[in-house]
Amino acid sequence: MKTIPERFDVAIIGAGTAGLAALREVQRTTENWVLINDGPFGTTCARVGCMPSKALIAVAKTFHQRNFLAATGIAGTESLKADLPAMLRHVRRLRDAYVGGVLKITDELGERVIAGRARFVQPDTLQVGDRQLCARHIIIATGSCPIVPQPWQTLGERVLTSDTLFEQKTLPDRIAVVGMGALGIEMAQALARLGIVVTGFDAAEHVAGLSDPAVSACAIDILSGEFPLHLGQSAELAPEEEGALCITAGSTKVVVDAVIASLGRRLNLDGLGLEEIGVALDEHGLPPFDPGTLRIAAVNISIVGDVNGMRPLLHEAADEGYIAGHNALRDTPECFTRRVPLGIVFCDPNIAMIGQRFKDLDPDQTVVGEVDLKGQGRLRMEGADRGLIRLYTDIQRGRLLGVELCCPHGEHLAHLLALGIQQGLTVRELLRMPFYHPVVEEGLRSALRDADSKLSDDSTPDLARCGRLGAEALE
Amino acid sequence: MKTIPERFDVAIIGAGTAGLAALREVQRTTENWVLINDGPFGTTCARVGCMPSKALIAVAKTFHQRNFLAATGIAGTESLKADLPAMLRHVRRLRDAYVGGVLKITDELGERVIAGRARFVQPDTLQVGDRQLCARHIIIATGSCPIVPQPWQTLGERVLTSDTLFEQKTLPDRIAVVGMGALGIEMAQALARLGIVVTGFDAAEHVAGLSDPAVSACAIDILSGEFPLHLGQSAELAPEEEGALCITAGSTKVVVDAVIASLGRRLNLDGLGLEEIGVALDEHGLPPFDPGTLRIAAVNISIVGDVNGMRPLLHEAADEGYIAGHNALRDTPECFTRRVPLGIVFCDPNIAMIGQRFKDLDPDQTVVGEVDLKGQGRLRMEGADRGLIRLYTDIQRGRLLGVELCCPHGEHLAHLLALGIQQGLTVRELLRMPFYHPVVEEGLRSALRDADSKLSDDSTPDLARCGRLGAEALE
Repeated sequence: MKTIPERFDVAIIGAGTAGLAALREVQRTTENWVLINDGPFGTTCARVGCMPSKALIAVAKTFHQRNFLAATGIAGTESLKADLPAMLRHVRRLRDAYVGGVLKITDELGERVIAGRARFVQPDTLQVGDRQLCARHIIIATGSCPIVPQPWQTLGERVLTSDTLFEQKTLPDRIAVVGMGALGIEMAQALARLGIVVTGFDAAEHVAGLSDPAVSACAIDILSGEFPLHLGQSAELAPEEEGALCITAGSTKVVVDAVIASLGRRLNLDGLGLEEIGVALDEHGLPPFDPGTLRIAAVNISIVGDVNGMRPLLHEAADEGYIAGHNALRDTPECFTRRVPLGIVFCDPNIAMIGQRFKDLDPDQTVVGEVDLKGQGRLRMEGADRGLIRLYTDIQRGRLLGVELCCPHGEHLAHLLALGIQQGLTVRELLRMPFYHPVVEEGLRSALRDADSKLSDDSTPDLARCGRLGAEALE
Repeated sequence: MKTIPERFDVAIIGAGTAGLAALREVQRTTENWVLINDGPFGTTCARVGCMPSKALIAVAKTFHQRNFLAATGIAGTESLKADLPAMLRHVRRLRDAYVGGVLKITDELGERVIAGRARFVQPDTLQVGDRQLCARHIIIATGSCPIVPQPWQTLGERVLTSDTLFEQKTLPDRIAVVGMGALGIEMAQALARLGIVVTGFDAAEHVAGLSDPAVSACAIDILSGEFPLHLGQSAELAPEEEGALCITAGSTKVVVDAVIASLGRRLNLDGLGLEEIGVALDEHGLPPFDPGTLRIAAVNISIVGDVNGMRPLLHEAADEGYIAGHNALRDTPECFTRRVPLGIVFCDPNIAMIGQRFKDLDPDQTVVGEVDLKGQGRLRMEGADRGLIRLYTDIQRGRLLGVELCCPHGEHLAHLLALGIQQGLTVRELLRMPFYHPVVEEGLRSALRDADSKLSDDSTPDLARCGRLGAEALE
């Protein structure tokens, strides 16, 4: 017996950030939509991503400041001790509150939300359990999941990922973190600050996705003061006696109780039946799509959010959902100008990458302004005067093109710089804004002045040139 | 015997931030300058202002976070105790390092720096001790000093100001802070956090210079959770038994061991002999000056920095020094576009005022966007989700005109907003920048979205409109 497909205007696969953002736009043009979600509702961000990791980081950072307090006249800091089970409960409590907020949204959507796994049987038709859903447009927003190498998958709970880390009742004494990208660095530092013996590994020579060797070296220097980092060698894992694990990277061999795999995320494409949509897939199983409209050529399908591998960040996933949702029922999809690229790693000091990356710029056409934050006024008062800001400007007009930085409060500087890049501002224009005193933004100003002094000896009077390089003692 | 005056191109009175900034510009055009300074060298900022207060605030804020730690799984916080003498030593140690940096600058200037009090004897001639100095242009940059009401001056060391506070070996148990402006609030909160019983007073009904009643009310609500504030009544002071002081404001009577007078600053004009320059002075003894060029009409004299009472902030003083120094020997002085007004109070949460003030705007021409930060994602993870941001936009085009806010990390938001105002950006343009997740800037975005939704129902597709108001649960 042939199943008669149910007919919809739009079907969205995945109720994460991208899928829900798409739905909000779809709802403006039609009520005849369906949202299909496999596995837990609640978005990667809220369940296992940004939220729990930032809760952990907030505690670890504050706990770490006991060293600053001890040096500045606060007695009794030696009595402070992290109660890991209590702290993990705190993280889950906060996390659950967020997830609750998201679940409320999907709950209120009612019957048009289907729990189940969607699989293409035709370019316009999905099989979900015993139902067939046919839609004029289908939006794939299935997200991604942590990569765990095949041989590690037999090691059970000793190999943790962001999916399982925050579910632990407590954490063991010795943990290796493999993969020094954003998540790996954030977790390695936080856990080390909480008293766990952490060792970090990465096959690459740089960390946190930085492409500027000077900024990466600065970050490595600072981080390795808190936990050892072994870079440039692949890590292999083997079971050891008494439930321990032995991790080997080149000539380094470390015995640990658990490993956090932070090796990046795999696109959730398996089982989607994309081979049925009649489009050639690449080696990851990804169909080709237009990066402007996020549509897959020749079919009425969009692919948005983490699953397309392009900009796996919450705010970009939301934008992609908006774009796909807006365009879903349009014959001629509209293109959108995407936001200035922005990446932030919430280690301490923060690491951030804004605009064009150092590795992508032509050194002959680029002037670099930089500041070493050693001795920076405000940071010194917080016992945190360390870091490096490097900003890249075009040699012709002095426009800010990109920045890589490792700097306390860098997450805020990153937003300021992103606005500057978005508006196409020159270093001189940025130097016309007020810099209050004493703030970390004055450190950024030193980098701007450095670029300005290298860009031009133009002596037009301009308050942007007030307080030139070298006058920092007065600030 | 008549003294023969020494002749200079430029004389600068005052070796503070404004005077030294002026000197840097003057040195570009002449070597024949003289710098006269009365009292200690080293700038108000470094000696008694920004630097020591921020050092104290950094310790107090970190110490205060023991409450957050206790709630999140860190044991032993009850053992923490502020050792006030050690903490004050720490503050002075940091402060002395800064002052040292500034003194090095004045030391290296050599003989052209004169220690002494300058007094005008002619519009172009100064008396300093037994020397007479005649200059083609004179720059007055004598700064300001804390106001202490006449009757309080007999109470000795029990009445402290920013000049004397950081010199104390320790601090008594009970302190009243009179004047809830920037400095008063910063010190009152910091000392309360360190365990001192603090009471705050101000004759006005608002605090921290805020002109928006809603933001002021929010700040008062938060601050009064840490120390009692008595507003709207003038405070009177009388000696009490055993060296104590009784402070009375309306029906409130509090006995304290010391009072911090933070009632604003007096312009250092006394004894300058300005009555000799042939210009009518106002009731404060201030000569009229052009706010664009900072020149006093009809004479070759400029008046810059705190002493002119216009923008008593370090970065503005430096700009005014630059303007006066640049123009000193020019027949036709150049005007400069001043920076966007920016004021920051470093209490916790920060208070800031950017651009046009609420009180100066026409309510009929202004659309207010606001966000209450209760529940804001990132702040909640830091146990700090409280505050209010109110931004003012022009009703015609949606351009951002000004902001008043009380918000954690507000000092950074203030710089972002100042850049936006400087560039004349609209709310929609600001919403096109990337907002990472999870950051406090997302709270600001909610205020921008609020303004956007009130400004226009324009439905042009635009990523600025991705994630409209009400979708914050997903962020």
